Amino acid sequence: MDLTVVGAEELPKALENARRSRLLALYFIGSTKTSTIPGLSVAGATPELTLYTPACDVEYMVYGRPKSFDAIPVTPEGIPTPAVITRACLKLCSFPYVVVDVGSALEPKIPHISLPSRRVGEPIDTGRALPIEVASSLYEEAKTLARALRGIDLFMLGESIPGGTTTTLGILSALGYNAWGKVSSASPSNPHELKERVVKEGLAKAGVKVEEARRNPLKAVAAVGDPVHVSIAGFTHGALEAGAKVVLAGGTQMASVLAIAKHMGVDVSDVAVATTRWIISDRTSSLADLIRQIEPSVKIVAANLDFSDAPFEGLRYYEKGYVKEGVGAGGTAVLAHLTTGKTMKQLQEAIYEEYRALTQK
Amino acid sequence: MDLTVVGAEELPKALENARRSRLLALYFIGSTKTSTIPGLSVAGATPELTLYTPACDVEYMVYGRPKSFDAIPVTPEGIPTPAVITRACLKLCSFPYVVVDVGSALEPKIPHISLPSRRVGEPIDTGRALPIEVASSLYEEAKTLARALRGIDLFMLGESIPGGTTTTLGILSALGYNAWGKVSSASPSNPHELKERVVKEGLAKAGVKVEEARRNPLKAVAAVGDPVHVSIAGFTHGALEAGAKVVLAGGTQMASVLAIAKHMGVDVSDVAVATTRWIISDRTSSLADLIRQIEPSVKIVAANLDFSDAPFEGLRYYEKGYVKEGVGAGGTAVLAHLTTGKTMKQLQEAIYEEYRALTQK
Repeated sequence: MDLTVVGAEELPKALENARRSRLLALYFIGSTKTSTIPGLSVAGATPELTLYTPACDVEYMVYGRPKSFDAIPVTPEGIPTPAVITRACLKLCSFPYVVVDVGSALEPKIPHISLPSRRVGEPIDTGRALPIEVASSLYEEAKTLARALRGIDLFMLGESIPGGTTTTLGILSALGYNAWGKVSSASPSNPHELKERVVKEGLAKAGVKVEEARRNPLKAVAAVGDPVHVSIAGFTHGALEAGAKVVLAGGTQMASVLAIAKHMGVDVSDVAVATTRWIISDRTSSLADLIRQIEPSVKIVAANLDFSDAPFEGLRYYEKGYVKEGVGAGGTAVLAHLTTGKTMKQLQEAIYEEYRALTQK
Repeated sequence: MDLTVVGAEELPKALENARRSRLLALYFIGSTKTSTIPGLSVAGATPELTLYTPACDVEYMVYGRPKSFDAIPVTPEGIPTPAVITRACLKLCSFPYVVVDVGSALEPKIPHISLPSRRVGEPIDTGRALPIEVASSLYEEAKTLARALRGIDLFMLGESIPGGTTTTLGILSALGYNAWGKVSSASPSNPHELKERVVKEGLAKAGVKVEEARRNPLKAVAAVGDPVHVSIAGFTHGALEAGAKVVLAGGTQMASVLAIAKHMGVDVSDVAVATTRWIISDRTSSLADLIRQIEPSVKIVAANLDFSDAPFEGLRYYEKGYVKEGVGAGGTAVLAHLTTGKTMKQLQEAIYEEYRALTQK
């Protein structure tokens, strides 16, 4: 089976006509200094390097090698970025894609959409992740962008933001959802306790009440959020308003996008989440549970990628719980399958080929 | 007659299926300090202000008011920017559009695509408009952008760059075309002599030979060009390579885009130019003659806008030879007509309405 739809037989509505859709994939990148808290994020060889992962991810995605640094982003163990999956799948597809910089610590050296209010998020244990005006501007600018892109039928929205599961825990907690122990990690040993401590510290300092945050979710973002999720939420708002369908391409992080949009008054029930098998079978997190709390009619579809037989150790590590998702890897695989008819096995071959090229550079 | 096709009966091939096309309009903005040479450009209330016109144009286009300054760009006489036409037409259309910043003196406060090598051009009388690496990077980055936007059938490419007709004169002259007295102006009294002096000074200082420039047109751009035309040329290259159709939305400036692309080895014969009636009936310039020299099979189509009966003096001035074109005004009107079926008369009403809203703010 190439795809798994969680708790359902049929594809989510948003994906029904993917093949004939005017489809545009957008990859939102941004940084939060939260990712530099030691032990929190493995989306980079060192905590400091996680700040540069988003730019390097998308440079690699477009050019086949990063331009800002000499090597692709890896975990401290050397396991490669999921952008390898994204790039391999995009190469097989024929739909357009663009990167959107909403606050990357490095400006990516590729053509990209910039939101004027882009800004790196502060560590969320300060309780002051973003000035509220910035959170609000990012939401509005992303909405404006979606409006200008009227005429597109289907948007796939991916992300690259190390530390994004921790800010997701922050945003969801501020909005009164029970997300403790439920957000994912690029590490097999999900540092739930550390994430919880960071979030609780931020929430305590910000002192934002649940009812207050539910009335204005930008307050949750300003306290313990980041530039990426609020921007994707704003874009989703504008896209749905313009009559487009939206597929959020990511793991548990997309729960915070749904939560922000929902509390901004958006009906997100027809939005779909597209991710990888590694996310939906992860025992250290629960995307399904988070989504059930926020909007149970949102469907999750997963690309059943399996690297057990991969000829490269770096990829086989994915089967041990490393990396799992990012840079819209799962969603891009789902759409590559739906728009080209290629099987997961064929996509895997392309991913292995891509990885081979990488190791030979 | 809503449209005029110069020297032909039928629509250019590029526009044949506009209505059913996956169409994307891109508005390229950039600055050249050439526009601050007194007397050269009227695309701003003062020579200095012309540097800010591109950002203000597109901010107004998206939001209905500029964000960086308090007022829309006007000529020294107070005649409003052609972005009024663009905005009014875009509001009637349902195709997506995005702004591309390739070197605006001000970053526009709207979501926009950035080319990493964006840079304001130096005054071309120095003979050193852009470092050649920058010219080359802009060309390549724009080409990369077009490749990522595969799947789009038809691109409309507009521009906003005050001083752009002078850099066009520079580029075309460096490439051995006879453009003296043939480039347009936003003023009814086209300052041909001043333009000629500025270009000749730049060419003399740069010392680039025609054969050399024809082998590598980026040398012409580096000497007496600007960031915008080379970027549109690079984008055109990538778009045609990806099988898309290209409509250049502008006046005589688009001749330099064609010339750069042609000498970069691109077959531009199926590209169309879409502009306004004011350009093709202008006696102080000749778009048709320029295009005949570069690639005679390129067709020109004009939107027959007529502001003789406009209820606003600012717009009636267009009939006296002021402004004429810019921010893709003509091309956007052409595509608004072709995709919505609205007549020029209906478009004019919308433009008057837009202008009315503006004067009431």
